[in-house]
Amino acid sequence: MDAYKKAGVDINAGYKLVDEIKNLSKNDALGSFGGLFPLALGQYQQPVLVSGTDGVGTKLLIAIKANLHRTIGIDLVAMCVNDVLAQGAKPLFFLDYLGIGHLDQTQAKEILTGVVAGVEQAGAKLVGGETAEMPDMYTHGHYDLAGFAVGIADQSKLLKSSDVHQGDVLLGLASNGLHSNGFSLVRDILFKQHDYQLTDKLPGLDLDLVHELLRPTRIYVKSLLPLIEQGLIGSIAHITGGGLPENVARILPADLSAEFHLNTWKIPAIMTDLQKIGNLSFDDLKHTFNLGLGMVLAVHPDNVDQVKVALTNAGETVYQVGKVISGSQKVIIRKD
Amino acid sequence: MDAYKKAGVDINAGYKLVDEIKNLSKNDALGSFGGLFPLALGQYQQPVLVSGTDGVGTKLLIAIKANLHRTIGIDLVAMCVNDVLAQGAKPLFFLDYLGIGHLDQTQAKEILTGVVAGVEQAGAKLVGGETAEMPDMYTHGHYDLAGFAVGIADQSKLLKSSDVHQGDVLLGLASNGLHSNGFSLVRDILFKQHDYQLTDKLPGLDLDLVHELLRPTRIYVKSLLPLIEQGLIGSIAHITGGGLPENVARILPADLSAEFHLNTWKIPAIMTDLQKIGNLSFDDLKHTFNLGLGMVLAVHPDNVDQVKVALTNAGETVYQVGKVISGSQKVIIRKD
Repeated sequence: MDAYKKAGVDINAGYKLVDEIKNLSKNDALGSFGGLFPLALGQYQQPVLVSGTDGVGTKLLIAIKANLHRTIGIDLVAMCVNDVLAQGAKPLFFLDYLGIGHLDQTQAKEILTGVVAGVEQAGAKLVGGETAEMPDMYTHGHYDLAGFAVGIADQSKLLKSSDVHQGDVLLGLASNGLHSNGFSLVRDILFKQHDYQLTDKLPGLDLDLVHELLRPTRIYVKSLLPLIEQGLIGSIAHITGGGLPENVARILPADLSAEFHLNTWKIPAIMTDLQKIGNLSFDDLKHTFNLGLGMVLAVHPDNVDQVKVALTNAGETVYQVGKVISGSQKVIIRKD
Repeated sequence: MDAYKKAGVDINAGYKLVDEIKNLSKNDALGSFGGLFPLALGQYQQPVLVSGTDGVGTKLLIAIKANLHRTIGIDLVAMCVNDVLAQGAKPLFFLDYLGIGHLDQTQAKEILTGVVAGVEQAGAKLVGGETAEMPDMYTHGHYDLAGFAVGIADQSKLLKSSDVHQGDVLLGLASNGLHSNGFSLVRDILFKQHDYQLTDKLPGLDLDLVHELLRPTRIYVKSLLPLIEQGLIGSIAHITGGGLPENVARILPADLSAEFHLNTWKIPAIMTDLQKIGNLSFDDLKHTFNLGLGMVLAVHPDNVDQVKVALTNAGETVYQVGKVISGSQKVIIRKD
């Protein structure tokens, strides 16, 4: 019964890890064939399930290089639940997939500790997961992570581009740095074009590179969800790969555009540093990074003050960054 | 705006792929922040969502080695929806995650064609997915796949070990060969311990190795779901990693065991060939492979004939392989 182990797959290590995750997540039902989530439907007229899947990209390679795996699971949850939230839905539950070359209990436990923390930040429940030990697929020490979140909303409460109107104010919620996008470019600039060390500190940064780069992606569920439920938000763009241009365009109706004023918020120093070091055009920058805004909300002018106050009280840094104008789904970033 | 592409990530290739998948899956809504699935709840008293995530393990390395990617997506869907089905739930929707070193449109389209085919076989809907281009993470040409399935069942209809009783008959549904488990051992035996070629034919096999190894995992949803809904099935074990011993044990109550008679069904030739070539003990074999049974059902004796007829009519090969006896969650495989 040892042939499989000799071939590189330790089934018992897998079982042991399931026990660890049960403890971490306090969900004893983990490890059954499927994860169960009872639906409490009283409050919904026409419930719609909203799901999202994502990974964390090559930010993983930074975590691996630094051997710091404690927060990458937060990134994973954030990338998924922020997408679900951007549709106007309340995240209910989460599952993770960990593909790994060799199952190291300590490393896997660190990774999953982050997943559990992220799920908690999102007010959701971890109902399942898969850890796949795949020798020859991943280099020793390497792993990939995929996450999967399911949320729920009433059909009529889903955020739609038809709820975005000319004159709506664009509010930006500060990101926690790079979040989980653009890391192949980051690594190219810092570690291929140049020879930066993870312990180096770039100009204007409080943290050394490793901690700056590994800042976990912010999870906006608890601050935004109450406002969505009160009908105070027109629509939401989660700013990920493609930056403001691609992601804000997705929430615009065909006859409207979005106009941002660059002087209304602060682009994080890590991004302007990367621009300088990597000789990036502003086009490169805006299409790759979030420019400091993790979420962009379109809000009716009458609701702006209330939304700002509520978000600030919930711990967000809120910028009024522009407005919705007539146009053809363009995202314009004015330098003044 | 080319810096990111130079760093190895082609965002436009990603967008183009989304268009391809929209065509393949006939779901125009793909590509929004989250996948939507409206719930039709009239028929459920206490609806429970049942979700599962899985990958296909190093079966991927066979597909990659052979450059045949058309069916690996079926395996992915099968691994997830069969788990959901084993809980007694009807699979509703599916999402896929594709992590890839370099996004080759042709390869990705082949992979996703399989995903779409699998989702159709499962009677489910593809509502979303993520294709993550991760240079430096995966060797060129390599990729990993993770799948996520969500199903629904009424609380009272969920299959539970408490519905398994002494004297229940065990029915086995024929697998389509190895399915997606044990491939690290398969590769170790055939390609490391020995020097087999993918074009070789092993004794007793109709297909050459590549086609034998890549037989897609069978999806049992359409044949089993009607019987579950009629309340004719006590419980179901999806036979994956850990084989009959681990997976059948999961459906047994604490005071019962399962007794199989090995002479009641046919172990596929690929497994007995691997046993001989790899000098595997029967213990190795039974803990790693499905032994030819993709699903094992516990069925009340009164329902056995009806279930057998219905499954046979639905295209399954059904074996009566043993019964539930008193004991302590042991899975006994008798050689007579």
